Amino acid sequence: MNPLEFHQKNKGKIQISLIEPLTKENLPLAYTPGVAEVSLAISKNKELVNEYTWKNRVVAVVTDGSAVLGLGNLGPEASFPVMEGKAALFKQFANVDAVPICLDTQDTEEIIKAVIAIAPSFGGINLEDISAPRCFEIERALREKLSIPVMHDDQHGTATVVLAGLINSLKLRDSKIDEIKIVLSGAGAAGIAITELLVVAGVRHIALVDSHGVMTNTREDLNLEKKKLLEKIGEPWTTGSLSDILAGADVFVGVSKAGVLTEDMIRIMAKDPIIFALANPTPEIFPEQAISAGALIVSTGRSDFPNQINNVLAFPGIFKGALENRLSQFTDEHFLKVAHALASLVENPTRENILPGAFDERVVSAVSSIFKDEK
Amino acid sequence: MNPLEFHQKNKGKIQISLIEPLTKENLPLAYTPGVAEVSLAISKNKELVNEYTWKNRVVAVVTDGSAVLGLGNLGPEASFPVMEGKAALFKQFANVDAVPICLDTQDTEEIIKAVIAIAPSFGGINLEDISAPRCFEIERALREKLSIPVMHDDQHGTATVVLAGLINSLKLRDSKIDEIKIVLSGAGAAGIAITELLVVAGVRHIALVDSHGVMTNTREDLNLEKKKLLEKIGEPWTTGSLSDILAGADVFVGVSKAGVLTEDMIRIMAKDPIIFALANPTPEIFPEQAISAGALIVSTGRSDFPNQINNVLAFPGIFKGALENRLSQFTDEHFLKVAHALASLVENPTRENILPGAFDERVVSAVSSIFKDEK
Repeated sequence: MNPLEFHQKNKGKIQISLIEPLTKENLPLAYTPGVAEVSLAISKNKELVNEYTWKNRVVAVVTDGSAVLGLGNLGPEASFPVMEGKAALFKQFANVDAVPICLDTQDTEEIIKAVIAIAPSFGGINLEDISAPRCFEIERALREKLSIPVMHDDQHGTATVVLAGLINSLKLRDSKIDEIKIVLSGAGAAGIAITELLVVAGVRHIALVDSHGVMTNTREDLNLEKKKLLEKIGEPWTTGSLSDILAGADVFVGVSKAGVLTEDMIRIMAKDPIIFALANPTPEIFPEQAISAGALIVSTGRSDFPNQINNVLAFPGIFKGALENRLSQFTDEHFLKVAHALASLVENPTRENILPGAFDERVVSAVSSIFKDEK
Repeated sequence: MNPLEFHQKNKGKIQISLIEPLTKENLPLAYTPGVAEVSLAISKNKELVNEYTWKNRVVAVVTDGSAVLGLGNLGPEASFPVMEGKAALFKQFANVDAVPICLDTQDTEEIIKAVIAIAPSFGGINLEDISAPRCFEIERALREKLSIPVMHDDQHGTATVVLAGLINSLKLRDSKIDEIKIVLSGAGAAGIAITELLVVAGVRHIALVDSHGVMTNTREDLNLEKKKLLEKIGEPWTTGSLSDILAGADVFVGVSKAGVLTEDMIRIMAKDPIIFALANPTPEIFPEQAISAGALIVSTGRSDFPNQINNVLAFPGIFKGALENRLSQFTDEHFLKVAHALASLVENPTRENILPGAFDERVVSAVSSIFKDEK
């Protein structure tokens, strides 16, 4: 079966179901006249909506279709099977209910207003496939204005799993996180979030490279997000191109473009370098080439190579834990704890096994349990 | 079990479920990398979103919480169990998926914008418990701007079932719809929609009474909706109070307040009057009193009396039919056809049996089938 056939046979992947069928007996409890009593109770204490309805069980998976997978700005309709797929992953992996919300606007202010308007209907908001730098402003505004947790998964889900993989890679290499030099290629949603989380995790030497070269304060083409990030991480140890900054670096993290990393570049890095080549579907360098150039560990975004960086390790458990504990908002400290929880599931990391698998049944509870008493 | 316990035990009534569980085998079809092919196909032909996702299977049940049941403006949280109950009814009776959307705004323009923004996520919009006269403007704007069907159920669902009940009542009484005099008490969302549909159905003599008496063109306190309606139905046959206009009338339809109709008023109506006393939970007059005053048929909104006017006879099948046939918008002609379809399910109407029951399994297909070839 091909993907089109798979989607067409059931017209999608999810459905609503009743927890209990409605009968002549329970209908007066579930709906009128009995439901009036429930409405009145909630009108006196709004918090009860979390006890008496599905609100605190359901997440909105919200997109504007502006950055669908690696395919670009395809609009809300084309993003739909991805958002419905995400909802299916929420259900399969964490038993969290999720509803795809594909918006008919790509205006930052209108997106913010629309999500605020529908927020009483949900226990959390998973933003998805919204292009940078708009995604930063949208997430920031929603976190300020809403008291339900909001997370742009392309940023924080990715960052969390990258950090988990890095933690175990550093164990294998016997390196300390505050001593290594990391070069990060690609300063979009994922690149910026990864950098921020790595700093929270203790990284002190990190340099960002975008399509114009190493990012420094002397560059005049940087957007506000990139400038703010540079203030946090400080000036890089050198300037120039990707090749220039890779000399002596310990770790390469790519969330950029197919093929930007070459074997020659890996050869000028420090001994036993760690390579996370996460461009999808074609990585910055293929694992075989990276290994032959001396890489100790290679990770990609693909399931057909070892060490897949897969957001599904993070977001289902993150929202499950957030909902169960009525978290009011996410912080980088939560993602840091999740990364350590994920890393600790692999007792003896090896070159080809730095992360648990997507279907590892311990994952969701390890992730969600970090939110206990985190309100 | 009381309603609070019923709602608390499962934290609500509905959930998301997977049509097929995700496995290692189908995950690459349902999500990345396979889903990219589906997104690309939809980006080339947006209509395919109806084939490959749940969009064309799912209805948004949208409220602003401004008119929750008969309880008033309780806000979005308190409206939630009602909207989730409505979603449960959609599923139970018509196997239509529905998602409660409780909005954090009661501003007409903001409601319109929010619904337009989320519209790509749904195959239809069921507006619910939005107060008059805002509900008219909101529905009108959404019908103009969206190409998915939009229906305010408090208006058209109620109007449709009232008309169905009236059709069978008139058969019993051997009266012609274009000859009878109808007095309608209550000029809110339901009252105005019922009047409009009755006119489409052939009623020529109908008078509206609101809390200030019979509505006439000389009244200076009428809002725009009421004025427009008066233009359609013409001047009433007399002026004054409810008692004045009831003299000689054949039908009373109340969507107003408990107790406004008395036995004495029924006694001055035409012989064998038809009484629809639909105020909830306490009707304009109780059936026993109405019968003792000479009513031929009495209908209420309650399940504990005969002849319940219950919207669940209409909206599940209406949306099922609209989705299956990709209806672009509802018109009164659709509701007229639905009313006749409902009425025809009762082969031999009696005084206590003018409508099919809510659990009558023929109802949904009878209703939905009127939408065949109705694009």
